[in-house]
Amino acid sequence: MPIPPLADGFADFRSDNTGSAAPEIVAAIAAANGGTAAGYGGDRWLEEVQRRFAEVFETPRNAPPRVFPVATGTAANALSLAALTPSWGAVYCSKAAHIETSEANATGFFSGGAKLALLDGEHGKIAPQALEQALASAGVGLAHKSQPAALSLTQATDLGAVYALDEIRALAAIARRYKLSVHMDGARLANALARLGCSPAELTWKAGVDVLSFGVTKNGGLLCDAIVAFDPALAQRLAIALRRAGQTWSKMRFAAAQLLAYVEDGLWLKNAALANAAAQRIAAGVKGLPGVAFLAPVQANEVFLTLDPPVMDGLEKDGIGFFHRGQTLARFVCRWDCTEQETGALIASLKRHTALKAASV
Amino acid sequence: MPIPPLADGFADFRSDNTGSAAPEIVAAIAAANGGTAAGYGGDRWLEEVQRRFAEVFETPRNAPPRVFPVATGTAANALSLAALTPSWGAVYCSKAAHIETSEANATGFFSGGAKLALLDGEHGKIAPQALEQALASAGVGLAHKSQPAALSLTQATDLGAVYALDEIRALAAIARRYKLSVHMDGARLANALARLGCSPAELTWKAGVDVLSFGVTKNGGLLCDAIVAFDPALAQRLAIALRRAGQTWSKMRFAAAQLLAYVEDGLWLKNAALANAAAQRIAAGVKGLPGVAFLAPVQANEVFLTLDPPVMDGLEKDGIGFFHRGQTLARFVCRWDCTEQETGALIASLKRHTALKAASV
Amino acid sequence: MPIPPLADGFADFRSDNTGSAAPEIVAAIAAANGGTAAGYGGDRWLEEVQRRFAEVFETPRNAPPRVFPVATGTAANALSLAALTPSWGAVYCSKAAHIETSEANATGFFSGGAKLALLDGEHGKIAPQALEQALASAGVGLAHKSQPAALSLTQATDLGAVYALDEIRALAAIARRYKLSVHMDGARLANALARLGCSPAELTWKAGVDVLSFGVTKNGGLLCDAIVAFDPALAQRLAIALRRAGQTWSKMRFAAAQLLAYVEDGLWLKNAALANAAAQRIAAGVKGLPGVAFLAPVQANEVFLTLDPPVMDGLEKDGIGFFHRGQTLARFVCRWDCTEQETGALIASLKRHTALKAASV
Amino acid sequence: MPIPPLADGFADFRSDNTGSAAPEIVAAIAAANGGTAAGYGGDRWLEEVQRRFAEVFETPRNAPPRVFPVATGTAANALSLAALTPSWGAVYCSKAAHIETSEANATGFFSGGAKLALLDGEHGKIAPQALEQALASAGVGLAHKSQPAALSLTQATDLGAVYALDEIRALAAIARRYKLSVHMDGARLANALARLGCSPAELTWKAGVDVLSFGVTKNGGLLCDAIVAFDPALAQRLAIALRRAGQTWSKMRFAAAQLLAYVEDGLWLKNAALANAAAQRIAAGVKGLPGVAFLAPVQANEVFLTLDPPVMDGLEKDGIGFFHRGQTLARFVCRWDCTEQETGALIASLKRHTALKAASV
Repeated sequence: MPIPPLADGFADFRSDNTGSAAPEIVAAIAAANGGTAAGYGGDRWLEEVQRRFAEVFETPRNAPPRVFPVATGTAANALSLAALTPSWGAVYCSKAAHIETSEANATGFFSGGAKLALLDGEHGKIAPQALEQALASAGVGLAHKSQPAALSLTQATDLGAVYALDEIRALAAIARRYKLSVHMDGARLANALARLGCSPAELTWKAGVDVLSFGVTKNGGLLCDAIVAFDPALAQRLAIALRRAGQTWSKMRFAAAQLLAYVEDGLWLKNAALANAAAQRIAAGVKGLPGVAFLAPVQANEVFLTLDPPVMDGLEKDGIGFFHRGQTLARFVCRWDCTEQETGALIASLKRHTALKAASV
Repeated sequence: MPIPPLADGFADFRSDNTGSAAPEIVAAIAAANGGTAAGYGGDRWLEEVQRRFAEVFETPRNAPPRVFPVATGTAANALSLAALTPSWGAVYCSKAAHIETSEANATGFFSGGAKLALLDGEHGKIAPQALEQALASAGVGLAHKSQPAALSLTQATDLGAVYALDEIRALAAIARRYKLSVHMDGARLANALARLGCSPAELTWKAGVDVLSFGVTKNGGLLCDAIVAFDPALAQRLAIALRRAGQTWSKMRFAAAQLLAYVEDGLWLKNAALANAAAQRIAAGVKGLPGVAFLAPVQANEVFLTLDPPVMDGLEKDGIGFFHRGQTLARFVCRWDCTEQETGALIASLKRHTALKAASV
Repeated sequence: MPIPPLADGFADFRSDNTGSAAPEIVAAIAAANGGTAAGYGGDRWLEEVQRRFAEVFETPRNAPPRVFPVATGTAANALSLAALTPSWGAVYCSKAAHIETSEANATGFFSGGAKLALLDGEHGKIAPQALEQALASAGVGLAHKSQPAALSLTQATDLGAVYALDEIRALAAIARRYKLSVHMDGARLANALARLGCSPAELTWKAGVDVLSFGVTKNGGLLCDAIVAFDPALAQRLAIALRRAGQTWSKMRFAAAQLLAYVEDGLWLKNAALANAAAQRIAAGVKGLPGVAFLAPVQANEVFLTLDPPVMDGLEKDGIGFFHRGQTLARFVCRWDCTEQETGALIASLKRHTALKAASV
Repeated sequence: MPIPPLADGFADFRSDNTGSAAPEIVAAIAAANGGTAAGYGGDRWLEEVQRRFAEVFETPRNAPPRVFPVATGTAANALSLAALTPSWGAVYCSKAAHIETSEANATGFFSGGAKLALLDGEHGKIAPQALEQALASAGVGLAHKSQPAALSLTQATDLGAVYALDEIRALAAIARRYKLSVHMDGARLANALARLGCSPAELTWKAGVDVLSFGVTKNGGLLCDAIVAFDPALAQRLAIALRRAGQTWSKMRFAAAQLLAYVEDGLWLKNAALANAAAQRIAAGVKGLPGVAFLAPVQANEVFLTLDPPVMDGLEKDGIGFFHRGQTLARFVCRWDCTEQETGALIASLKRHTALKAASV
């Protein structure tokens, strides 16, 4: 089937999953195709993934991470969290977290009925005092209370902000004090890394993260994300939980090859930098426009703007694709392959419609 | 990473999932890469899949099937069955069924505790009288009994046989009489079709099948199988169940493109015919060898042989890869890309070792 | 074992479950003991329960309710709600609801992962606009969203208030508009009835309630609460769900006998009136004391007071038993067998300590 | 409601749960009724239960058992087993086990999808070699296989036989070798103890049992069975699992009082001896009758006889109540309050109808 051409002038900010796959990743799939390979992860590609990710995450020689390719970010999140909580546990997360807003309670399902405990905070982050207070009053040890089991942090957040390293460490420290495990939803981990300039190790296990949902698809991947388990005790239980969740591909080499290409020569960070830069162009271009306000600082590849409804209508008529997060809240997500033409079109359209709106008042 | 070369003289009958992907399918992924596409199945490729599968399965114009790409056959089976049974239900299947032997009770998990009720029969099939008797004594309506909910048939069976059309119809008719839904595990559906020469429609919905696990990976696919729901009532519940199971890819077009290539120009049936033919070569080549017995008729792409342990050891030393299903039971699976050299090597090795064994007695 | 005597001067407002059982209920158990009776609910006592509850709830002749005795209120709530929601559903309830605060997410467990969606409102009630708004933005039909399935109302509320009939009807009407089922947690239903003076029918099925957790234990019962299903479609699925939840007693007659005694001659309403009257004595006695504020109107058998910590300490030293709901929030629950001596002791103690506190400022 | 009189001449062998409660147990409930007591097990009766059961089971001073009253035997079994197995585990049990035949897969439900692995053996027992062989071929450590987690033994068995101490020890030893925990379904534990004459300790933890379903209801109890956890690690997880399963009564004292009365002065063993003796009378009375065969040795309070259908019809016409386990298999269960008149009536009826049958041949 021929590719449907991008409609003339269409600028697509609907999501980062509408974008194309990185050519390197498509090429890696093709290159893995030949000969035979043991099924269900017994192949050399997955072996190589384990080795490469130990390098990427600079783990101690005797404590390599265990990497599990999975089909989607929802699978990565829900199965990671299910491995961290008993069925009567509670997972603490931001009210804006993807696991709460957009996964149909997959965590509740895979865990056999664990609960998401929702926390306040700015810009999609969890406020440390909100976490502390919730845990202090959770009723640890009381049989009629869901028992605190895990903290889930989204990095970058679901509102486009990025936790500073110190913020991650502080939240993880509170979690540790209450004996919670720490999960990071890294659907946009690369964007956060590109922003912070720190190492993958610093942002994850060194900051207290036990298990990571390692996002690939949104940033140039294709059909594969991953779980990275830093806590070896999780590996055995994840292995069987994933198999029975139908997440263990028999022709695993074609997933593993994607992961290898994704981290090869820093492809993931390059792609993320491209997407982040596009978001910065938008932020710079629309700053100060009348009636336009940022919901959160633009630190990754998403821009959330409060806009008047007529402005939103105007954008749509101009062929700007975006997500209506509310009647006056618009989300613009920059893909790794977002073009300058697209960001330019958005800025121009916004300028035009906000000027019209200002003139009409 | 360069492809590890197939070891000299290695003949790989370990599984059909050790094989390569069909070049057409790899090419389809590459061809789908460009422009942007709505996520989670809102793309044109998946729309085209729906249209094409309605043709392939010759469904009535007002009752098209609904196709859901999923990551694995385990996901296809377990989520299909979970859609057919309440959590207190029972799923009737063969003792040899993959859902019983090889999926870590995924069906029990996704259904919230439904039970597999195991039935006897020859060659991996379910004997009609075994099904009838089990249902008659199941205690329908009694609160202390798991309630019969679904019948699951594996076509081709897990022992390499193929149900005749009449056999499928007869079992489905019994199921209907007891108000059970009918699921078909078609991990090797193409092999069965290639064997029977009937149409996909005849083998599935026309024979009474409500929902089909549509196997792709084992027969030249890559990272994608599918559920084909003929009963429209299942579609809505599958849509949400799959999303929360982490089985709904955001970049769905890359899965849909595989399905399109798989059925294009009958690729699936051609591949299956190649694999079946390889199995026939083996069957013909080893028939009558001393100490070699067939566990079941060779009707698809698998050959199960009872062999003496020393013969099995000899095969391994000769570089023949296969699966030890028991101390004296060997499984040889023929890939779509199985070579004549490989089948030749297996036959020669078997001849040599059985002769040695016979001489030593 | 001899009964431990109530410590001298101890006034027990810890909970209504600390109280004794009504003598009529104990007598009914003894009276049911003799001869033999078919197990698991096949006895004449449960048959009589079905008949009597149809009278009590004045249901149409062709639509009697179905009554299921269960061990606890948690079982009644969680199993009722699990019968109303698919595993991907959402149950809408007050933030103060017992199912949220005090049942360790039993609803999430029995439903296979459904979610509680928490709503604001005054005095433990759900505000109609909060429900309306939540449902309007719930994403009905979107696969990544928990699907609205049921509304759960607590009557009397968990903060001691009572919904007016019109309030129940209004909330149920919103639920109907969005195709939700309606559950009522009636752990203190009798207290609400005694307050409102309306009929059981008016407060339940006539107001739109599909299934009721019928509280007995807190109001003079012993080891038995019940589910009352007004929707006949629920009966069959509850029957098997309860059996496999281990909630179907084999010697059911001893549970059924309790339910019969509970509604005989209006015992349940008499007991509730006693408990409510005790709460009114407290409310009247402490009204206007300095530093004492009511969290909610006293309309059933619970009194929630904000108190200074030294006052709370003083009460404890005086032998007043109550529940610290927070550092400055005390809950006093009146049992059906609460004595005037107890309420007098509480009022006197509160007067003394608030006066001391006022004097010390 | 007056007690329905036992129909003239009706002899009730339908089940042991059709019988009355022991007067001592009813009296204990009445005696516990007075004053107030902390809810959910914070009362002195449950404290006393813990102390008394440590004596009854002669546990080491530093390792007392933990006793959890529950509503039913199904709850005791399913929740005990769910505490022993991960959701991907397998529980090994006899094909005749109550957990397989009569609990609607409650174990699968409470465990989140664990599987019952069914074993052969005589008289409802598990054959050691069947267990050994199943475990040896279970695929420990393989992700596609349910992982062996627990062994469940029914004592007395579901066919009326009793395991000898050595048999229990041998099976438990196999379980230990494969790192399985051991559960005993002791719905008729007292009957087994009465038969064997050994101590409760010898039959349970000394023989390798980790957790026990302690049957009360069938043997003179009323609305309460219990879980006895010998492994302290289970206690914490059972406490919360039971609460959220709706199995933790708020007025727990009325359950605890039943347990105290049940073991007081050996009431449980006396009752069991009465029931066993009734079964022995039947066994002696019908031995050698033409066309009558015992399915299993009569060692507890159940008698399974293969009978010709006309004989079964004849018994029914004579007012003998029993359970048709199959067309030619009748189950007669002796209650603790089974009378000599009843056993006499059964024997006489059987003699008459087998003689008629023999004469007619």
